[in-house]
Amino acid sequence: MNRRKFFKNGALATAGVGLLGACNQTEQITRLEQTSNKKAKNIIFLVSDGMSQGTLTMADTLKQRMYGKASVWLDLYRNNKVQRALMDMASESSLVTDSAAAASSWGGGHRIPNGGINVGRGGVEHKPIWQKFLQAGKKAGIVTTVPITHATPAGFCINSTSRNDQEGIAEKYLNLGLSVMLGGGQDYFDTSSRKDGKNLYQAFSDKNYTVVNNRIDMLNSANTKLLGVFDSSGLAYSLDRNNDKAIEKQTPTLAEMTQKAIDVMKSSEEGFVLQVEGGKVDWAAHANDAGALIYDQMAFDDAVEVAINFAEKDEETLVIITTDHGNSNPGIMYGKDVNTNFDRLQSFKHSNDWILQEITKNDTVEQVRERVEYANNFGISKAQAQSILDYYKGLEKPEQGLYNYKKLPFKLLSEIQQAYHSVGWISTNHSGDFVELAMYGPYSDQLNTFVRNTDLHNFMLKAAEVEDFATY
Amino acid sequence: MNRRKFFKNGALATAGVGLLGACNQTEQITRLEQTSNKKAKNIIFLVSDGMSQGTLTMADTLKQRMYGKASVWLDLYRNNKVQRALMDMASESSLVTDSAAAASSWGGGHRIPNGGINVGRGGVEHKPIWQKFLQAGKKAGIVTTVPITHATPAGFCINSTSRNDQEGIAEKYLNLGLSVMLGGGQDYFDTSSRKDGKNLYQAFSDKNYTVVNNRIDMLNSANTKLLGVFDSSGLAYSLDRNNDKAIEKQTPTLAEMTQKAIDVMKSSEEGFVLQVEGGKVDWAAHANDAGALIYDQMAFDDAVEVAINFAEKDEETLVIITTDHGNSNPGIMYGKDVNTNFDRLQSFKHSNDWILQEITKNDTVEQVRERVEYANNFGISKAQAQSILDYYKGLEKPEQGLYNYKKLPFKLLSEIQQAYHSVGWISTNHSGDFVELAMYGPYSDQLNTFVRNTDLHNFMLKAAEVEDFATY
Repeated sequence: MNRRKFFKNGALATAGVGLLGACNQTEQITRLEQTSNKKAKNIIFLVSDGMSQGTLTMADTLKQRMYGKASVWLDLYRNNKVQRALMDMASESSLVTDSAAAASSWGGGHRIPNGGINVGRGGVEHKPIWQKFLQAGKKAGIVTTVPITHATPAGFCINSTSRNDQEGIAEKYLNLGLSVMLGGGQDYFDTSSRKDGKNLYQAFSDKNYTVVNNRIDMLNSANTKLLGVFDSSGLAYSLDRNNDKAIEKQTPTLAEMTQKAIDVMKSSEEGFVLQVEGGKVDWAAHANDAGALIYDQMAFDDAVEVAINFAEKDEETLVIITTDHGNSNPGIMYGKDVNTNFDRLQSFKHSNDWILQEITKNDTVEQVRERVEYANNFGISKAQAQSILDYYKGLEKPEQGLYNYKKLPFKLLSEIQQAYHSVGWISTNHSGDFVELAMYGPYSDQLNTFVRNTDLHNFMLKAAEVEDFATY
Repeated sequence: MNRRKFFKNGALATAGVGLLGACNQTEQITRLEQTSNKKAKNIIFLVSDGMSQGTLTMADTLKQRMYGKASVWLDLYRNNKVQRALMDMASESSLVTDSAAAASSWGGGHRIPNGGINVGRGGVEHKPIWQKFLQAGKKAGIVTTVPITHATPAGFCINSTSRNDQEGIAEKYLNLGLSVMLGGGQDYFDTSSRKDGKNLYQAFSDKNYTVVNNRIDMLNSANTKLLGVFDSSGLAYSLDRNNDKAIEKQTPTLAEMTQKAIDVMKSSEEGFVLQVEGGKVDWAAHANDAGALIYDQMAFDDAVEVAINFAEKDEETLVIITTDHGNSNPGIMYGKDVNTNFDRLQSFKHSNDWILQEITKNDTVEQVRERVEYANNFGISKAQAQSILDYYKGLEKPEQGLYNYKKLPFKLLSEIQQAYHSVGWISTNHSGDFVELAMYGPYSDQLNTFVRNTDLHNFMLKAAEVEDFATY
């Protein structure tokens, strides 16, 4: 007899709590017990995409040094409020997963080769978990800072042989019955940018979705079925948003989108499931951009706070907080000026994307230096500025990189910045590190200390007592 | 009333277990409860020095792929046998600690500036924890793969304004009353290598220590007070030892030293405390040497196995497994050949130290290629071999590095190897990542999910019921 059935049927279900109280157990055990005889009516699954252990550390450290207040994520640890595990995220094809196979391991319960979404070898399709919950009567939603059609949200929702078919993924969302989709990716919805010229916004309107394209409209929209798409591809980095009124007006924060998604779904009688992705944490790591990375991780932390605040009051919500893989393994590097250097990140104003996108081959060395100094609050040397300019003049081989469409010198700029902020990187891509996983709320006490990525699939179904999980 | 006192005095001390059993709790809660009303008579504190999260991951992964058997450390997680925490290891002077300040935080209970051992600002001395336990009647020992006088063991034993005064530290050990000291560092004991010409071996003999200098003598020695010093400085890397009969004969493994130390002390009526350090994990990380790093981490894992095997039978031993800081944040890097590349480490025969120490400026390109191929089982290009040779010919600037006394091209060799084994590094020094901490046995249930390094000091005293800890 499994423990869940025991608690549902057995007379000791509530007695257990009392006995434990009498035993004068530790805080931790008391906490575990509080949750163990409740089911998770709702699940909020938060993913900081591509978050190495150093990213979590640096965001907590910078937040403490800037605001005297640690991260919400790690304060959950400091206050013994969560269960933690280490998670092996390998894919079917590789020790180092991509985001599509990673999301599929959770979403479909199977490891698949990198590149696809819930499609295994030989084309075997695995039913995505948000579809299972929808079928069980729950509402479902996805929120992200990258395109809504990107790998991580898609992995919970649909099947696709290729993660790159984002136009196709947008169309697949149309008939799913999701209650809320918020993020980037206008390119895949808008008639003017879609290759097939279809007007997906109109199609979603026809299905009774409210469609919004800016922050104010999102905040003011009724809490009914909602599609919000706020940028052509990924949303702006939080660091850029924080220092640009126009972006602030246009684009909601991840925390605001999370709150809105909860508001849309919280009155659902059968409960809801919501995936929240800090997708640009991964993009910043691919760019080896310490400022963009840490500020987006802090923005993710604000979304964690929204989820935990809701769950604390609600008491029926399981909150899962994790990442899908490491990326570039950034860390604060030893050295005599490390504290001063790392603290420079406190006065950063803009991302390296912001710095590099606007430089042209006609700029002067001084203009490049001014731009870096405006963004980072420290001056680079003339020689360093010249080495950046050389890329634009075609004197250096263009850089590659997953989201570096214009082949700009992100790696070079990062290497220059290292001497100023003391943050280093192993590469510009994912790493195979086992990753951080934390859970709060009902059923979290059932989490093992080490899990395989695919375990989370059945874990969520069991937590919510969607009993027929084995037959899906 | 604290929980410990409650259990010591209260009638529910044993009843608690029964009640919990009746509640049909989860495995995890049952496990915690098993330990919570026992004190830790013995403590074994294992430190993999300079172990980033990726090091732990890679050793577990390589062990699985080589032997079909995961690491003992992570199998403790897989079997829900330990409590885990994340630990903030910052020192008084820096976000990134050195090993001396790190060991002092545990050993003395205070954060001090990098470089000293249990000496704070203004020369304030903090009493080292092994001295406290000795005073309480326990036996105490230290075991390491680097000099016994190195920062990590010293941090539990003595006070010194500088970690570099290893001759002085060796002398301080003389009057401590430690039962067992095993590791490297003949330079600091031998009359021929000490600057002051003192014969420390004789001095330890005069204090009734058995002094041994090779593996067989150590294994055959009686289980009485023991000093074993097996190399001039650090012991050979495990990878080199595994493939060299002479080293195998001369040098015990960390697991063998751990077993010997336990055997020397296990009959102590008042119990014992033992620190075990995988010190060359850190040296390998400083050298960005993936082979040396992972095999030494696997050798550390064998020592974990010895400690856990003892503790499982003994039932009165708290085992603490952790690291003092990250180092270089190595990780398996994304790429299409990553599995094949990483598997190359299975047939590595020697460390980069072995490769580089014997090359001379008179070698040919072919000789360098042969040496790398013998050690790594893959061939590097002529141009790559030439670039290595250029260092020996004085055509390139000598490399720096903490344990790179001869200024050899470790970083260059590692960069060449990356294309073959897919392991990358952020630097050649420590990182500021929060670190992994696990505990097994009595009192481990009292571990918070997040701890500050200094917390472990009182934790150990409390676990062992050395009640006057607050007055020290």
